[in-house]
Amino acid sequence: MKPIGIIHTPFTSLEDMPIQPKGAGEELGTIEIEKQYTAGLADLDEFSHVYLLYQFHMAKRTALEVVPFMDTNKRGIYATRSPLRPNHIGLSIVRLTDIKENIITVRGIDVLDGTPIFDIKPYIAAFDSVAESSSGWMQASEKEVAAKRSDHRFVG
Amino acid sequence: MKPIGIIHTPFTSLEDMPIQPKGAGEELGTIEIEKQYTAGLADLDEFSHVYLLYQFHMAKRTALEVVPFMDTNKRGIYATRSPLRPNHIGLSIVRLTDIKENIITVRGIDVLDGTPIFDIKPYIAAFDSVAESSSGWMQASEKEVAAKRSDHRFVG
Repeated sequence: MKPIGIIHTPFTSLEDMPIQPKGAGEELGTIEIEKQYTAGLADLDEFSHVYLLYQFHMAKRTALEVVPFMDTNKRGIYATRSPLRPNHIGLSIVRLTDIKENIITVRGIDVLDGTPIFDIKPYIAAFDSVAESSSGWMQASEKEVAAKRSDHRFVG
Repeated sequence: MKPIGIIHTPFTSLEDMPIQPKGAGEELGTIEIEKQYTAGLADLDEFSHVYLLYQFHMAKRTALEVVPFMDTNKRGIYATRSPLRPNHIGLSIVRLTDIKENIITVRGIDVLDGTPIFDIKPYIAAFDSVAESSSGWMQASEKEVAAKRSDHRFVG
């Protein structure tokens, strides 16, 4: 498993970063894919949304219980999206706006500048749409998620 | 990056396997998480759906262009969910039915028996729901996806 590229975003510090794409609103980021993989991006530009699988590269440790950004109680790490999971893989769904050769531009990006990326997958409604779901402890609205900002609790 | 457990499913051969959770219908699978991570599963049982991030362990090679199961044309690998991507990570959304200690039971599982798993994340509608999307070349209906079965094109 090795990075296929790097994500560039306006967020150079964890302080005041959006915690999810829905908090990142109109923020643009670019994903610079290594040129050897450019051919793999063919046909991707016709999808509106993509999954990004990336490395939480600032998380150097693991914790099996954490207090998530949107909660005040400790939760099992696998019931959260915290970076401190045993494998430091992050998942975000972002809007695709443009692809030029090996550079992908996306909107609503919630990761730190310089984040290594492992994979990009098309969001396919026929595979991925979930009509009804329940979100356990996570009862915040999209508006509350959008307003929330990161801090340093999951670093180092 | 190392597996945190193993997925057990009824699918011991790629032949005739569903290609996506929506094709797996009511099939049950269990995820056996290593006991050292059991504490990380706390609170997960209150979520209805989870993301599974796993290894396409039968895919030994990479191809930057493939003909996807639901298509007859070659597409860039990143515009598909094919296993032959440079990092062989798979992503599925499944229904959670039960957790007992380190054993998670899920419904609608579309992976091969013995698949190594890297991560589990809660599906959180406030983060993940996509109201409107376009799926490029993938124009098949959920019903067509559900009827489609795998073959050996992405093995070895």
